[in-house]
Amino acid sequence: MNTAVPGFLASGISAGIKSAGAPDLGLIFSQAPAAAAAVFTTNKIKAAPVRESQARLHQSAGLVQALIVNSGNANACTGVEGVRHVQSVCRSLSKTLKVPEQHILMSSTGIIGVPLPLEKVTGSIPALVGALSPDGLDDFSRAIMTTDTFPKRIMRRVCLADTEVSLCGIAKGAGMIMPRMATMLSFILTDLATSPEFLRSAFREAVDISFNAITIDGDTSTNDTALILANGAAGNPPLTGDAGGGDAFKDALCGLLKDLSRLILKDAEGATKLITIRLVNAGTSEAAKDIAFQVANSPLVKTAFFGEDLNWGRIMAAIGKTEHEIDSDVIDIFINSIMIVQHGCATGLASRAAALLKEREFTVTIDLHHGCASAEVGTTDLSIDYVKINSAYPT
Amino acid sequence: MNTAVPGFLASGISAGIKSAGAPDLGLIFSQAPAAAAAVFTTNKIKAAPVRESQARLHQSAGLVQALIVNSGNANACTGVEGVRHVQSVCRSLSKTLKVPEQHILMSSTGIIGVPLPLEKVTGSIPALVGALSPDGLDDFSRAIMTTDTFPKRIMRRVCLADTEVSLCGIAKGAGMIMPRMATMLSFILTDLATSPEFLRSAFREAVDISFNAITIDGDTSTNDTALILANGAAGNPPLTGDAGGGDAFKDALCGLLKDLSRLILKDAEGATKLITIRLVNAGTSEAAKDIAFQVANSPLVKTAFFGEDLNWGRIMAAIGKTEHEIDSDVIDIFINSIMIVQHGCATGLASRAAALLKEREFTVTIDLHHGCASAEVGTTDLSIDYVKINSAYPT
Repeated sequence: MNTAVPGFLASGISAGIKSAGAPDLGLIFSQAPAAAAAVFTTNKIKAAPVRESQARLHQSAGLVQALIVNSGNANACTGVEGVRHVQSVCRSLSKTLKVPEQHILMSSTGIIGVPLPLEKVTGSIPALVGALSPDGLDDFSRAIMTTDTFPKRIMRRVCLADTEVSLCGIAKGAGMIMPRMATMLSFILTDLATSPEFLRSAFREAVDISFNAITIDGDTSTNDTALILANGAAGNPPLTGDAGGGDAFKDALCGLLKDLSRLILKDAEGATKLITIRLVNAGTSEAAKDIAFQVANSPLVKTAFFGEDLNWGRIMAAIGKTEHEIDSDVIDIFINSIMIVQHGCATGLASRAAALLKEREFTVTIDLHHGCASAEVGTTDLSIDYVKINSAYPT
Repeated sequence: MNTAVPGFLASGISAGIKSAGAPDLGLIFSQAPAAAAAVFTTNKIKAAPVRESQARLHQSAGLVQALIVNSGNANACTGVEGVRHVQSVCRSLSKTLKVPEQHILMSSTGIIGVPLPLEKVTGSIPALVGALSPDGLDDFSRAIMTTDTFPKRIMRRVCLADTEVSLCGIAKGAGMIMPRMATMLSFILTDLATSPEFLRSAFREAVDISFNAITIDGDTSTNDTALILANGAAGNPPLTGDAGGGDAFKDALCGLLKDLSRLILKDAEGATKLITIRLVNAGTSEAAKDIAFQVANSPLVKTAFFGEDLNWGRIMAAIGKTEHEIDSDVIDIFINSIMIVQHGCATGLASRAAALLKEREFTVTIDLHHGCASAEVGTTDLSIDYVKINSAYPT
């Protein structure tokens, strides 16, 4: 698969942050300064690279030319020293790449609370820059993996009036996933020419219905970052709104982020199922989303799915936990198209629907009959392997 | 242990609701009508016996003379028929016991969504009543178990001025535990003479700092009920406030409910650890409780404790998920008395503290340095056995 995006180079190498020579340092370089938009974790405890990236995006008017990412160390809960480490890495990279320091961002993922091994990172910068290539995104996406079992990369091309534009999305994440306004690490590269305002609004819209609509364990990371870089190499008349192909670009971006979100769920720690929770006819959008997440995060619902057991009472109990107004006596529940609960009671079709739980993917539709708002959340089961992975993950 | 409370009789038998002849039907009978106070689940989806008990307590001015409880079937999500079944059981019991029907309550626990096997219950009433005895509370507490591995029963005696009063508490629950204003099934019997108002306020106060401060999996049941019956057999001048021993009674009641809560945690499905999360110096009581519950319910924190792994970054991430205002750079964290995080960063004492995680019980203290409110929540680890138990529990 050709994942090159015109005007972008990338690389990924081992800097010795992880043991055993696994790749752990990646770089993306845009030959021209790129318009950037980002959403970061809403966790109140933000990693040093998140704090520093937020400040830089604000100061640089949204222009970014290079992004360095390490895995194996989150550089979170590392105090003032952690922020100084980010600044040192960016300064060192600025000298080697000959680009202004304020146009460089850093992201990190891995263990929390351990100081970043600064010399390993800065010492690897010459090799990292030397390895830059238009085909380097594969190496980059491997260098940002932690408990991921496969690299997550998706390519799209979209036609705007006369110009073909490329979009490449890269993500990592397999645990500590319930993004809430932002998400794990995800980087989208495009050669689109666009105003920063249009890019920001299109990106936020797409993130809301993709990364912000999945959960693996209800835990929100300190390092979540989703960043899009648009370098204009496609040469289209710069987009400023839906005209001139803006709507087509937004559609492609939404589709790309949704597919990336699914890849994250497919690689969820220990998961054996990919489940879509559809909440329909809720009183408000907030109620729809809250209740869908309650069901998606219930350990009892998730363990039942792991056991391929149609224990729908647990779904009802998870719905009922809500503080929103609902009427328990009118709720219907479907597994795919089979109605297992009608007016809050069993339909007798549970045994027929149970066969569907043996599939790798299925949809649970909950009809509250209480309004006309809806929401959709992607989730996974809770397996023995999730506990094994997370009780053994080294501090 | 003598668990008899003057004026109360109890029994527990097998009615064939569970398979294999396990005890599944219990009865408590007060020789005089008892003042009653109860708190029920805040889950919006309430089981038929909860709905019916709420209505009866309202109609009967808080007087109760008999309580029948079955395990093996929750009688939840069973529609209008479920409520009719509760009424039939109470009517049948009323005839046998010769007490007014409105002075009888029913509770149920077990699988959701399956009709109560009415004939099995009503057919067993003569045997159940025949088995009533002052020493029957042991049989009763066994008859209300589901995934519990041991019966939970605690006895207290408290002196009010001239009178010794007995208090016996019984509970069941090992999963779907995060009570939120009420809890699993719990019944407290006392021979105290009291005004219903004093009983209600003392009970609510005690429930808030006991059952409402524990969580196993963050899931709230449809059947949670905590009920106290005071039959006045002790003959003390009826309590109406803190005077005349009211404060001593409240202390004893709080202690009893806290100990019952600990028994529930000790029997938590698959748990190997009992962990107290102490949140101190929060901005508000609500923030203290919310953040303590966030840490207590985080799957990543709980699996780390199962692995006896001092992954404190997960504790920080769980704290930061909050929507309350906090300052991440001033947070301190202790395991028992060892400070592992100071001003949001590692102290270097984690390896010393790690030894404490091998104990069956320990305390995590989180100091937010943001105000003067505090909260304490009891929780457990998340083990492989929790997943095994809950993926295999039959629907």
